[in-house]
Parts: sequence; structure tokens; C-alpha cells
Amino acid sequence: MPLNLDLKTLRFGTELLKRGFAKMQKGGVIMDVTNAEQALIAEEAGAVAVMALERVPADIRTAGGVARMADPLKVKEIIDKVSIPVMAKARIGHFVEAQALQSLGADMLDESEVLTPGDPFYHIDKRKFDVPFVCGARSLGEAARRIFEGAAMIRTKGEAGTGNVIEAVRHQRLITRAIEDLKAMNDDEMKRLAATYSGSYGSLLRDVRKVGQDDPKIADTDLVFGELSLGDVAIGLYEVLLEIKEKSRLPVVNFAAGGIATPADAALMMQLGCDGIFVGSGVFKSDNPKERGRAIVKATANFDDPSVIAEVSKGLGEAMKGLEISEIPADQRLQERGW
Amino acid sequence: MPLNLDLKTLRFGTELLKRGFAKMQKGGVIMDVTNAEQALIAEEAGAVAVMALERVPADIRTAGGVARMADPLKVKEIIDKVSIPVMAKARIGHFVEAQALQSLGADMLDESEVLTPGDPFYHIDKRKFDVPFVCGARSLGEAARRIFEGAAMIRTKGEAGTGNVIEAVRHQRLITRAIEDLKAMNDDEMKRLAATYSGSYGSLLRDVRKVGQDDPKIADTDLVFGELSLGDVAIGLYEVLLEIKEKSRLPVVNFAAGGIATPADAALMMQLGCDGIFVGSGVFKSDNPKERGRAIVKATANFDDPSVIAEVSKGLGEAMKGLEISEIPADQRLQERGW
Repeated sequence: MPLNLDLKTLRFGTELLKRGFAKMQKGGVIMDVTNAEQALIAEEAGAVAVMALERVPADIRTAGGVARMADPLKVKEIIDKVSIPVMAKARIGHFVEAQALQSLGADMLDESEVLTPGDPFYHIDKRKFDVPFVCGARSLGEAARRIFEGAAMIRTKGEAGTGNVIEAVRHQRLITRAIEDLKAMNDDEMKRLAATYSGSYGSLLRDVRKVGQDDPKIADTDLVFGELSLGDVAIGLYEVLLEIKEKSRLPVVNFAAGGIATPADAALMMQLGCDGIFVGSGVFKSDNPKERGRAIVKATANFDDPSVIAEVSKGLGEAMKGLEISEIPADQRLQERGW
Repeated sequence: MPLNLDLKTLRFGTELLKRGFAKMQKGGVIMDVTNAEQALIAEEAGAVAVMALERVPADIRTAGGVARMADPLKVKEIIDKVSIPVMAKARIGHFVEAQALQSLGADMLDESEVLTPGDPFYHIDKRKFDVPFVCGARSLGEAARRIFEGAAMIRTKGEAGTGNVIEAVRHQRLITRAIEDLKAMNDDEMKRLAATYSGSYGSLLRDVRKVGQDDPKIADTDLVFGELSLGDVAIGLYEVLLEIKEKSRLPVVNFAAGGIATPADAALMMQLGCDGIFVGSGVFKSDNPKERGRAIVKATANFDDPSVIAEVSKGLGEAMKGLEISEIPADQRLQERGW
């Protein structure tokens, strides 16, 4: 079983360190910032980390076109300014953007659907990196695949740049409910579920076969991710599911992201079981970023104390205007990117 | 076996020279330019060659209408200005544009889907030309057909004029993966694959039969490409596949093209196994063509050194804005031209 050995080594060697780093953010708020001044405001507001970006998601949405990793100069400028960890976003599957950001000294990378995806078949093989990754997920299957690929943190995808929390709630409830289901499963059912989850891999092979050959069958020996066959992947996902069942939760920290705009939104996601909060456009697209940032941090830390939520929500001025989800055409929803 | 002899002569006589010329571009960047000043900027940025064009793909997309070969005056002006090789684009199947460009002294021709196709049935019979050709391909079948027709270089089609690398990644991964499949095939399977690949020829005959006759069957003696019957073509494609299997790669250099806009994009395509890079709209549709051109050249040469990628990506200003692939109606995607 060389595979099992490999997976174990990967997961419990450097994986342990990477997951440990992610865990240190627990209970905290990670804020999107686009320059050093914003990074300082975020730090002073009590953010546990900042995400260095060219544009916040709301502006990416408005600008349209292709969204790519931020200018390394900007990332560096932010790293130099604050003492808290600095994260940066790479496009889904664009492992060279990830390599470049790692070499710059980013503390964590977000393989993010907010940027335009770079690969139609593969997510980044995050096991090959020293830097920890966070990835978005809408479902337990997505979360399991990303953890299998080496993600050290999972976040809801939500619908970024909308200031609308409903999609983050959807994803968190779906994942929580699927974990409840998992706990009731026997071993055979879990293996079947792992096989189902592994089906999302192999699209490259299906495409190749469509063009060239009559037989669309995928042999078990075909590589579908890194050096792994579909069978290997199913075993790997089964191991991830075992770990989830054993812990009754994801084995990595699970943050909320996508549409969180108010202290009450942040506390809602925490009460739904999230370990921490990403605020994208919500802070710096509001009237009073400094106050709102501080309020969201306090609400996250005191998520189960309604009087604190009420108190910190007072007189914050306008939240970001936001977007009704039904106004976004289905094929322009960022959450649909990745699988 | 006069056919075999002919193919061999063609492939290893002037074919060798043509492929040799293409190979000299290896590891380099070829940039689209629309005038002599841009050509000079490209040369100074370290381009190994330039592609002389009336408009870059992004502008062709915006302008709409029929896109044709560039004004020979423009091609000549560029040839006279720079010392590096000058390429030019001819429409798919428009062999007279190719003849004219060859007579002008263009060093290489691109039979390109970026221009409006000129023939619904045939690509140019590139074996009849002294000048080497590059052709686009989305799959191993397309690449094999173009090599069979005499192409000395293959490039991914990508989706030109979008500044969006995902389609180039798709094509490169599909071709690489199909070559892996090929290596595992026995002789019978390879012959069947060659027969499948040859099926894309013969559309002229099928159309003739549709209009003139009841019997849609294509006899093996009917000519489907140049002086070759469907059977000849299948044998020729089988020989190309044999060469690919033997070399474990395409027998001609394989560049990336279509949507490359950043140094990280170029390095990504190189890490995926490409031999060099075409940058179309990416350079001269950006804020700072001179710096961006230089950065893409450096990233291509140092594609496996993340610190170089990070360094050259600093402070380049805005990349080309780009286009989300899902916003382009399927029948307006340039990659669908040719087969």
C-alpha cells in the first residue's frame, strides 16, 4: 500500500503544520485589503489576517474581464506594512501564480473562484506546496476533494461581492447536514460516497476519449490527479470521509466567506458552526470601514451574545449596497467556478 | 508503396528544414505586432520572432466582419525594420494568401483560426510550400492532421483575444494526455485511432454526395486531401502517430497560444510542457507593452523559477482586461474554426 503511506505522510507531515497554521486563525476575521493603508486599518480593527488583492470582489464583478493574481509589488507592500499574516489569491488551477505568491512570502494562499479559473480540469495540487491553502466549497464533496488535494482550510464559497449572506448560509448548511448524514453511514455506504465524490475527477480523460476514441470507459489505471488513478483518489477521499466522521466535523478549520457584510451576518455564520470569517467587499465597500471592521471582529468573537451584536451594530452607517442573487445570471455566479 | 516513399521524402527532405526552423524558436516568445514601431519594441523586449498583423485578436473580435491576411505593405515594413524572423497569418485553407505572403519573404506562416476561414473543406496543403507553417490544435487528432499536412510547428488554439489562459491550458492538457494514452496503445489500436482521426477529412465528398447522389458511402479511392484517398490519409496519420509514440511528444515544436497575458500565464504553459509562447493581444493591449513584453520573455526562459516569475510580475500595470469565456457565444469562439 504505497499510496496509503504517501497520503499519510503528506497528511500528517507537512499537512499537520499547514493545518496548524490555519487553525491559529480560528475565531478570527480575515479581511480583504487592496493596499497598505487598508491593511493597517484591518490590523487595527483586530483582523487576524488580511487578504491582499488587486480589487475587492464587488469591484471585480463590476469591472468584468479576467481577474488574476495581484501585482506582487502590492502583496509585498502589504506584507511589509502589517505584522499579522498576509494571504493572497491565485486562480483555480493556476499553480504558477501560486508558486510566485509562495516565493514572495505570502503566509497562506486562497485558490479562489473570485478570480477567473486557470484550468478547466484540475485544481492546484496543494500537497506540493509548503504554504497552506484555503479553498472554497459549496458541498461536502467539494470540501472533501479540496482537503484531499491538500487544502488546510475550507471556506464556504457564498456569492462573493454581493454583500448577501444567503449563499454562504446555503453552503454551510449543506456541508453540516451532509456530515450528519455521513455519521449515520456504514463503511460500504461511505465507500460508495467516496466513489461518487471521485467522479468529479477524470473529466480530462472523458474529454480526451470524446475526441479520439470510441470507448469512453475510464480504466482504473488512468491518472486523474497528480500521479493518482481514479481508484487511488476514491481511497484518498474515503480516508478524508473517515476523518470527518471520526471528528464529526471537517478535519481542517471551516470559515465562512462570500457575502458577509454586517456583524449579525458574521455571528450568524459562527452560530451555524463556522470557525471564523472572511470579509471581502463588506468592510471597505461600506461607509465606515474602520468602525465596521471592528464591529465584525467583536461580533465574531461574541457570536452567541445578542446584546453585543446589537451594541456593535449601532450607528455603523450604510453597509455595502449589495446584490440580489436572482439578479445575477446563473452562469455569472462565481460559486459555480470549480467543482 | 509509392505513397510511403513520397511521405518519407516530404517529411524528411524539406520537412526537416522547415521543422528545424521552427525548432530554432524553442524557449522563446513570439509577439503579435501591427506596425514597425511595435515590432521594434518586441525585438528589444527579446521576442524570438514577431507575427505581422493588421489587428491583434482582441481588436479583430471587437471589429467583427471578415478578418484577412495583413496588407503586404505592412508585412514588408515590418520585415524591413527588424532582424528577427517575421511571421504572418493566412486564413485557414486560403492557399493564395499563403502564396502571396511566402513571396513577400515572410519567414513562417500561421494558418490561423483568428482570421476568417477561407475553405470549408480543406486546410492548406502545407507540403507544397517552402516556408514553414504553424497551425493551431485543440486535440491530438487536430495536431496529427496538421502535421500530416506539413505543419512544422503546432500551437494550442486557446481562445485568442480573451487574455484568458484557461482554453490554452485545456488544449495543452488534452494533447499531452492523449499522447500518454497513445503510448499505451498496440498497433491495432493505433491504426483504429488513425482511421478515426482521418474521418475529419472527406467532408467535401460527403457534401457532394448529399447534393448529387443517393449513396453517401465514400469509396476508398476517392481523393480527400491533395492526391490522397481516405485510405492514404489514414496511413499517413498512422505514420504521424508512430512518430509521436516513438518520441513521446509531437515531432514538431509545440507552442502555447491564445489568451496568454501575464508572465505567470507564460510560465504555466511552459510547465505544462510547451516549447515556447505566442503572445497576441497580451502585450500591446496592456498598460506597458515594453515592460510586459520583457517580463513575459524572462518568465518563459525561467519558467521553473518562481522567484523570477514573482520578480518580473512586479509593477507591470494593468494586464489586458480580457474576456470571460462563458460570455462568448459558443458559435463565436475562434477555436471552433478548423477541425
